[in-house]
Amino acid sequence: MSHTLHFFISIVLCFVIGIHRVQSEITYIEARYPLRGTPSAPNAPWPQPQYLNASLDLTYIDPDFFIVYSNLRNCDITDKAIERYQPLFYPPKLTIRSPDTFDDSRVLISVLIEIRSKKCDVYPDLHDDQSYNITIENAYGKITAENVWGALNGLETFSQLLFITEDDYLAINASVTIRDWPRFPYRGLLLDSSRHFLPVPILKQQIDAMSYNKYNVFHWHLSDDQSWPFVSKKFPQLTEKGAFSPDHVYTPEDVQDIIEHARLRGIRTIPEFDSPGHVAALGRAFPEFLTDCYNGSTPNQAIYSKHAAREIIDVTKDEVYKFMKEFLQEVKDTFKYEPYIHLGMDEVTPACWLSNPNIQKFLKDNNMTNGTDLMTHYSNKILGIAKSIGAKSMVWQDPWDDGVKLPLGTVIGIWKDTSLLPDSPPWSYFLSKATSEGYDTVLSAPFYLNMIKYGKYETNDSVMNLEFFHWYNIDLFANFTGDDAARKRLIGAETTLWGEFVDGTNSLSRLWVRASGVAERLWSSIDVNNPEDAQFRLDVHRCRMLRRGIPAAPILNGYCGPYEAGMKQSMVNDPIFSYID
Amino acid sequence: MSHTLHFFISIVLCFVIGIHRVQSEITYIEARYPLRGTPSAPNAPWPQPQYLNASLDLTYIDPDFFIVYSNLRNCDITDKAIERYQPLFYPPKLTIRSPDTFDDSRVLISVLIEIRSKKCDVYPDLHDDQSYNITIENAYGKITAENVWGALNGLETFSQLLFITEDDYLAINASVTIRDWPRFPYRGLLLDSSRHFLPVPILKQQIDAMSYNKYNVFHWHLSDDQSWPFVSKKFPQLTEKGAFSPDHVYTPEDVQDIIEHARLRGIRTIPEFDSPGHVAALGRAFPEFLTDCYNGSTPNQAIYSKHAAREIIDVTKDEVYKFMKEFLQEVKDTFKYEPYIHLGMDEVTPACWLSNPNIQKFLKDNNMTNGTDLMTHYSNKILGIAKSIGAKSMVWQDPWDDGVKLPLGTVIGIWKDTSLLPDSPPWSYFLSKATSEGYDTVLSAPFYLNMIKYGKYETNDSVMNLEFFHWYNIDLFANFTGDDAARKRLIGAETTLWGEFVDGTNSLSRLWVRASGVAERLWSSIDVNNPEDAQFRLDVHRCRMLRRGIPAAPILNGYCGPYEAGMKQSMVNDPIFSYID
Repeated sequence: MSHTLHFFISIVLCFVIGIHRVQSEITYIEARYPLRGTPSAPNAPWPQPQYLNASLDLTYIDPDFFIVYSNLRNCDITDKAIERYQPLFYPPKLTIRSPDTFDDSRVLISVLIEIRSKKCDVYPDLHDDQSYNITIENAYGKITAENVWGALNGLETFSQLLFITEDDYLAINASVTIRDWPRFPYRGLLLDSSRHFLPVPILKQQIDAMSYNKYNVFHWHLSDDQSWPFVSKKFPQLTEKGAFSPDHVYTPEDVQDIIEHARLRGIRTIPEFDSPGHVAALGRAFPEFLTDCYNGSTPNQAIYSKHAAREIIDVTKDEVYKFMKEFLQEVKDTFKYEPYIHLGMDEVTPACWLSNPNIQKFLKDNNMTNGTDLMTHYSNKILGIAKSIGAKSMVWQDPWDDGVKLPLGTVIGIWKDTSLLPDSPPWSYFLSKATSEGYDTVLSAPFYLNMIKYGKYETNDSVMNLEFFHWYNIDLFANFTGDDAARKRLIGAETTLWGEFVDGTNSLSRLWVRASGVAERLWSSIDVNNPEDAQFRLDVHRCRMLRRGIPAAPILNGYCGPYEAGMKQSMVNDPIFSYID
Repeated sequence: MSHTLHFFISIVLCFVIGIHRVQSEITYIEARYPLRGTPSAPNAPWPQPQYLNASLDLTYIDPDFFIVYSNLRNCDITDKAIERYQPLFYPPKLTIRSPDTFDDSRVLISVLIEIRSKKCDVYPDLHDDQSYNITIENAYGKITAENVWGALNGLETFSQLLFITEDDYLAINASVTIRDWPRFPYRGLLLDSSRHFLPVPILKQQIDAMSYNKYNVFHWHLSDDQSWPFVSKKFPQLTEKGAFSPDHVYTPEDVQDIIEHARLRGIRTIPEFDSPGHVAALGRAFPEFLTDCYNGSTPNQAIYSKHAAREIIDVTKDEVYKFMKEFLQEVKDTFKYEPYIHLGMDEVTPACWLSNPNIQKFLKDNNMTNGTDLMTHYSNKILGIAKSIGAKSMVWQDPWDDGVKLPLGTVIGIWKDTSLLPDSPPWSYFLSKATSEGYDTVLSAPFYLNMIKYGKYETNDSVMNLEFFHWYNIDLFANFTGDDAARKRLIGAETTLWGEFVDGTNSLSRLWVRASGVAERLWSSIDVNNPEDAQFRLDVHRCRMLRRGIPAAPILNGYCGPYEAGMKQSMVNDPIFSYID
């Protein structure tokens, strides 16, 4: 899409504001610094579609007559989506008037969802066609897509085009053409259920918010030092001893509930069980799996800043691999549609291993010399187990970075950067290197959204939210040195909300609307990169998320409408959107 | 209280954990960094009382028989407090068993609240005796205080001593002696209702949370550039034109509701109406009050980074003072018990004034030369008006700092610091100077809690939440150079939650439990200053706040109980604590 066209579209949508004032507006005044950028139409979609053309005139929707239907019969994905979108089309508690005073030609009758494949897919795949088209013309709308996943993207965008006018009509541009597809196929979000427990209703709202921002992978960090909330049928002691309490667990039913909730929204759920480090909770169930760390000849000694008393798996023990094979098989069976398991492998410090006489002997007996050899041994074993049970593997970059030869086909998560680890190269270095070596990679290094930081970005002629400005300006290919083939191996990125200081009290408001900024850079054209304009569209989107019960926090001064959190018409914590019985 | 004694008390409370495991526990594991400090008893009060002695053995409470009563008849403060504390004593949704299996001697029968003055005070005053004593002995408890405000502090501490044991009994140490008083009489919290609107239910929950942390002044920032939410009966145009929308206002009834909500909890409400800067919203109602800023000879011109097109009051206009007199009279009548009005006066840049030919003429006609002269003129007028209507004045430090001679009796808010303004002296300089000149002062400079920042404080032998560590280590008298008389003029401090990026979605979870850290330094003895121990007590307190419906966010890894936000037994957003109809 050309830059000129984009500019034209912005203007077209803008004019809608001029015609009909709406409930959602913002104000931003900094006496000495101006807020630059083009104010947004109330129904500007987020992330910005690749191609969008919309007329100035409006057509109206009558909730009692408007229907959305699909060319697929008895397809759970589309059937349930159509049902799910009803309260998104017609926000509960807000007044919507019947447009019966308008001429029939100005009332939208229906939207047909047409799946070209005529197939009701079961589970989204990285290589699926995620594109869709929308046309609205002469009182009829149509969403076309190759498959149901593209159709879900189209339905989400369509829902965003609706808005409530100042005189309480539900409206949409009378004539709309959208052609849209993602820039990156993998748009992930990591939530950490170990450092604090995140109750199922919070996870469901997070998944809902993901779908409103076209994220399509939920990376579920399910184990760490602090707790092991995943109930295993084969190894119940994992939660009996490793969970915070019997109330702080995900039962098999909970896990299926989450997988299904995400699947119906076109979102994959990739579980992460981290090892051989970050396993203190595992060690509470299976103390024998952990390495005793030594101080001189004394076992079970912490040398702080180097290692704890016991913190990593003893890679020399056969029972570890026996356990891992059985456990990963259970994981594979549980996440039955998902080809990938994330195996962690980050932040292993060999100091503890090397302090242990048994491991020193193992090294000698096996002609090994150092921690990398041990990690090679471990990762070969574990990746081999994963392969043997039919799972594909994702890992954090650490073993690869330390010189372990990972089989091609392993997806590498790039999380290291100078900003996080002062002695580390920048993430662009790792990204270029891993993709050039043939690995598919996912970038999370610049998107640590747990690292919240208050601030304004001020120049003499502009003020913006510092974090938004920062993230919105990140381009994944900045300083990329790989060739075109390598470029294609950067499959996308993940925002992360590590859980040290996050639980059900603040998980949603901390992540949103901040994660939406990243979402646009992962979906939209590289040309859509003007943060001064985008901040206004994002503010409109944050109001939209509020109307859908997500307590998305503001990045601009101002207001949304009478449905803000804490107001009588607020949808935040309304049972329809909050999943709390 | 001696340091030895404090240590002893910590140990005594600690043993309670050994006897009865409780629902609230924390875990914190950082493989390479230890968490130091003494784990807390589940019923450790926050902030730490000045003197506390508690026995190891427990007594139990039967919700059906336990009564709290007072020696005052028909006193709204005590009567309503006793009623209000019922769901705090007996957290709804949690199981509490009747202690009928215990011997009667182990069941607490009653607590008498004894007000020595025998007076039902109406509104708290800075100089009130805020102290209280608690004794529990032989199945009877007693809270004694000079006045109702001290009694409220005692009731809050008493409520914190209760805890639910692992076997679901409501318990308290069988024998307790507490003598307690605040280190500083003024413990304030500023909330900003202009940059975003904070709905009444959110404000009420904030006030509740203040009372759980012994804050006693709600500084309500009610006007700024962004919006004017305060409905004036005399000047309805203020909100008609200055509010975000008719839904984003505080009606006179709302304001009385807030004042009363705070008053019943021993909390003063000090309104702030900021001028002559931060008045863009006022200017929407009264454009004629603002100064046209010039660029050369052209009026109404922004020169960004210096001034906007119009941003400050025209101090030469009589109608401004006429308005201010009428408006401040209304404010005084509205906040009828509160002696102080905060008049703002911060961040006025004279560049705009001096660019305006009319003001240049005014300067010349009145033998004035600069912005300080204009500010002197304005502050003399406004402080004179305040005095004439019987109000006492608080202002931010700016006019005093710029050389304006403020009358003694004006309370000065110290907010400037090197960390906020690189060219500024540190806050300790301002504090020493203002108090030495005879001004009562309130410190907010180091307590800008809107400036959230993720981080861990790590040394080789300890890890802590960075923000908690930072705030908990601030002593208000650090680098203080004033004499003893000056010391007494530092009446306390205020935490601030400026509203640029805060609204109902995140106001509560962003402020708490962070503001609790400051609360302890404002209330407790200077000796209570060990953050490694305090973090555990604070974590227990954060669980307590969760049980009371406040979505207080964690500062440690771990968990509280089955009542966390998002869980079925959560009290967060339960109608009893959330005030949403």
